[in-house]
Amino acid sequence: MDIKHYTSQELEGLSERIRDRILNVVSKNGGHLSSTLGATDLIIGMHYVFDVKKDPFIFDVSHQSYAHKLLTERWDEFETLRQFNGISGYTKPKESPCDYYISGHSSTSISIATGAAKAIELKGEDRIPVVLIGDGSMSAGMVYEALNELGDIKLPVVIILNDNEMSISKPIGAISKILSQSMASPFYQKFKKLIDKTLTGMESAKYLAKRFEESFKLITPGVIFEEMGVEYIGPINGHNITEIIQTLQIAKELKKPVIIHAQTIKGKGYKIAEGAGVGKEHWHGVGAFDLKSGENLKKSSQKSATTIFGETLLELAREDEKVVGITAAMPSGTGLDIAMKEFPNRFWDVAIAEQHAITSSGALAKEGFKPFCALYSTFLQRGYDQLIHDVALMDAPVAFAIDRAGIVGEDGETHQGAFDISYLRAIPNMTLFAPCNETTMKLAMLFAKEMQTPCAFRYPRGTFMAQDCSSLPFVLGKSVVLQDGNDVAFIGYGNGVGRAMEVAKLSDFIPTIVDLRFVKPLDGEFLTNLSKTHKNWFVFSDSAKIGGVGSAILEFLNVSRINDINLVTFEYDDTFITHGATNDVEYSLGLTPPQLSQKIKKTLEGNI
Amino acid sequence: MDIKHYTSQELEGLSERIRDRILNVVSKNGGHLSSTLGATDLIIGMHYVFDVKKDPFIFDVSHQSYAHKLLTERWDEFETLRQFNGISGYTKPKESPCDYYISGHSSTSISIATGAAKAIELKGEDRIPVVLIGDGSMSAGMVYEALNELGDIKLPVVIILNDNEMSISKPIGAISKILSQSMASPFYQKFKKLIDKTLTGMESAKYLAKRFEESFKLITPGVIFEEMGVEYIGPINGHNITEIIQTLQIAKELKKPVIIHAQTIKGKGYKIAEGAGVGKEHWHGVGAFDLKSGENLKKSSQKSATTIFGETLLELAREDEKVVGITAAMPSGTGLDIAMKEFPNRFWDVAIAEQHAITSSGALAKEGFKPFCALYSTFLQRGYDQLIHDVALMDAPVAFAIDRAGIVGEDGETHQGAFDISYLRAIPNMTLFAPCNETTMKLAMLFAKEMQTPCAFRYPRGTFMAQDCSSLPFVLGKSVVLQDGNDVAFIGYGNGVGRAMEVAKLSDFIPTIVDLRFVKPLDGEFLTNLSKTHKNWFVFSDSAKIGGVGSAILEFLNVSRINDINLVTFEYDDTFITHGATNDVEYSLGLTPPQLSQKIKKTLEGNI
Repeated sequence: MDIKHYTSQELEGLSERIRDRILNVVSKNGGHLSSTLGATDLIIGMHYVFDVKKDPFIFDVSHQSYAHKLLTERWDEFETLRQFNGISGYTKPKESPCDYYISGHSSTSISIATGAAKAIELKGEDRIPVVLIGDGSMSAGMVYEALNELGDIKLPVVIILNDNEMSISKPIGAISKILSQSMASPFYQKFKKLIDKTLTGMESAKYLAKRFEESFKLITPGVIFEEMGVEYIGPINGHNITEIIQTLQIAKELKKPVIIHAQTIKGKGYKIAEGAGVGKEHWHGVGAFDLKSGENLKKSSQKSATTIFGETLLELAREDEKVVGITAAMPSGTGLDIAMKEFPNRFWDVAIAEQHAITSSGALAKEGFKPFCALYSTFLQRGYDQLIHDVALMDAPVAFAIDRAGIVGEDGETHQGAFDISYLRAIPNMTLFAPCNETTMKLAMLFAKEMQTPCAFRYPRGTFMAQDCSSLPFVLGKSVVLQDGNDVAFIGYGNGVGRAMEVAKLSDFIPTIVDLRFVKPLDGEFLTNLSKTHKNWFVFSDSAKIGGVGSAILEFLNVSRINDINLVTFEYDDTFITHGATNDVEYSLGLTPPQLSQKIKKTLEGNI
Repeated sequence: MDIKHYTSQELEGLSERIRDRILNVVSKNGGHLSSTLGATDLIIGMHYVFDVKKDPFIFDVSHQSYAHKLLTERWDEFETLRQFNGISGYTKPKESPCDYYISGHSSTSISIATGAAKAIELKGEDRIPVVLIGDGSMSAGMVYEALNELGDIKLPVVIILNDNEMSISKPIGAISKILSQSMASPFYQKFKKLIDKTLTGMESAKYLAKRFEESFKLITPGVIFEEMGVEYIGPINGHNITEIIQTLQIAKELKKPVIIHAQTIKGKGYKIAEGAGVGKEHWHGVGAFDLKSGENLKKSSQKSATTIFGETLLELAREDEKVVGITAAMPSGTGLDIAMKEFPNRFWDVAIAEQHAITSSGALAKEGFKPFCALYSTFLQRGYDQLIHDVALMDAPVAFAIDRAGIVGEDGETHQGAFDISYLRAIPNMTLFAPCNETTMKLAMLFAKEMQTPCAFRYPRGTFMAQDCSSLPFVLGKSVVLQDGNDVAFIGYGNGVGRAMEVAKLSDFIPTIVDLRFVKPLDGEFLTNLSKTHKNWFVFSDSAKIGGVGSAILEFLNVSRINDINLVTFEYDDTFITHGATNDVEYSLGLTPPQLSQKIKKTLEGNI
């Protein structure tokens, strides 16, 4: 959409139409709501001042990029937001050439912009990277790493800091508006240079003045950026399109790294969701809802794995004061919120900072506490080295609660919990296990609490597939037989147990069903015995095939010199998995129970 | 050693004796020199003011902790520094109860201290974590993540920032000394509180003053910390023990997070190494050297893999302007220094910031460049999520040059390059391969340069084991047979090829020797054919067994329904691997050629 010749009135009308469209589609499909409504005016400003065909538009996390999608020839297709084969909830270059980079994890944008700026400089092109980043994303360390280099190499990058009061210190007051505008003007920039020049050589006077000022604690958010060598303009009103455009035009002309601090209102334009206070958090990401009342349309009757985790953890914390918990900016997402409320001193949200979350958990464990470090599978990747170096190598008894393990559905590629088994299995001192329903979740957590060494247990987004399962307590490295059958064994791990049970229902034979429980260490004795009576093994796990549960079993069989097992593993193939309703995605992977039942039938016809 | 009643003269004498001891042992054994000499006086101060039996002493990276080791009953054993079964070059709780935490990777210390401070608070104990961190470590994002939380929860932690001019902006001048001392005094602290109180309610006046001050750019290192809620004292002279002790005592009394900015001289006390300028970098970590002349005692005649990499990369960069390179604070360690010198605009040291290094490489690749991102295997772990999310998912053709893959020798547990194959293999879009000698390194790099998708190749610390190998160009997923033999196949990967060749020399049969070259994708056609003629396969790779090369082959055999292969894999067992000369360490793992030759003999006697 070419909006460069719009009047400010037309731009405001556009802004309203975009918000309507977003509200309309998100209320039907679910999605990210409040951040994307809040960022709409800033995105219009970006499209007005910069050239999306030329300048890299980089959206941090990119759940706020819906307006950008609507402005770049996806107005109609937006109807399919987050549906299988539909528009992604994040930027995705394969979807549109206007989407510069994939983004779903936070705090990557300034690094991307820095790399792009270097490339543009080398090619001598007239382009400028523009970043839109929320204040919540500013807590992750990689933002600081990127700003450090960007401030050093001083290549042109415009960073719009969308401050919707999620984390940065509160705005300073009305005076700021006038000041920030005069500071951004060419006159001010010239004036500043003059002053800087005049003052050269007056080192001690400058320092004295500085120390005096510091004792007054007159610190604004800008200082931290200017310290790093990045210009700071702001705060500006992130809903005043004229002000946004003026500021962006000035920033563009500066030809160096600039941060524009824009203040916006989360949920802007939808009264029920506006603001970022208590009771508003859930408007960040929503399921389908009724536009008028704001009420959820779908309510699940079954408890999610996350809810069971949160409730059980609270119980454990009540019973034992050594139980503590850590989340990285996902208190409600991980279910830790209820324990945080009851025990604010023992449960911490450390912000988007997985590295710090993990290492500080290690120290808590060393001091005799039992930290449950609750992270999504895909975000645990962020602290991989810390898990190895500061927990496993220390043999510190941290329990990692890995939420969103397996297909996460509508969030897609960037969020699938596929790799955790593969990347954790190789780490010495780690114990890996998984519950498969509500009862085993509680048992797994009891077991985790008693572990004297590092461990991790994984569970899916939403509800477990299995209902009834064994209620035997967890014993280190011990599997459980759920059903005795003929010579075909279904071996499930985590949510794979439920899948195996569903498939069994569709089979015209009675398989032995095993809840593996532990993928590290494996139950070697049991597997050896199983190999004597069962020659066809089918492995079910919601995880990557390479290095996964099937591989663990193959390694065991090989070391044990057991050569006569036909092992088929139903895990994820070696590809990034797209977004869509979980069932649609699983169907596309051939992992729904009816599909698996057919595959097993064909395999057995070949083998038996 | 109880030094609490020492006079300042006695402390200075001690400082000299410690430096002598360090110089003596490091000149014989090799080790970290200049940082540990520079930190000696600070460590004496820590031991004087704090109680090592009670207060957690946390050394960042901990290569500077030698003085601490000497002060805690390891004076004599220090003789065995970095030798197999000897004193570790890093802090290690198993070695001494005075070593609070394992540390070898940088920038973890403030997270550890934050976790410890939370635990101490919960237990109501009278202990205070003390951190010693170098300015070089301040560039990694996790420091910022930790400071963010620490400044928020405001628990007592004393952080000594050892500024030896490696990265932080230059000191302000003589005036600083007087000022910093008066600022640290109880009087100043009281005065500050009074002023803060008086000014409450004068928001706009404060803001105006601030904006005015900012336009003068009167910024000191302290601002960034105070912005985060951490007190700043400094700079102080990090070699004046009396000043150190006074400042530490004040900091201890503050009962909140404090950073003490101490200026030290790298290599202090050894004239040849003093300072941090050009020509002094190599004194950071050294091999055995002559104390008088400062000259290296051992000079290797064979080129290291790193040198071959650096030279070849320079050649590629000369031929093709699209070739660029990134290192995270290891210009000479990765061999990138020579290319940085010739092409300062195309090769970047982004500081200790692996996350940013990787993501910004992704953007460079998207813009049409061919980035070689050179990292040690153990540090690549730091950017694991970025590799998945910002490179592999984008299918961006970054080439990861994985240095120090396999046993690294004297640095030990924290630095072994064991896990990269296991954690990279599960990532879609990745191609993984390895050279085994000088010629194949060049071929591998030519291949990497032409790759249009992400790839990673690994090579060892020091020299390759193999000399002669195939000079056939690399072809995607193609293995090479180096020697035709009887029905026993030796399959080598990377440095494992040289190991296989050495073992072959010791065998009383002629094995077929295969250079696997690619672990992803495997050469399926070749392996299938091999399975028809060779029933005993021995796999050699310097990497973890779990999820490693052997597992990749097992997965392939299983999918291909090849059931009759006896596969033995010689990779690393599921344990963290200790420090020592590489040969000693490999002997302890049973991986030296004579040991392997014996194992193979026994295996074949059982099987054939």
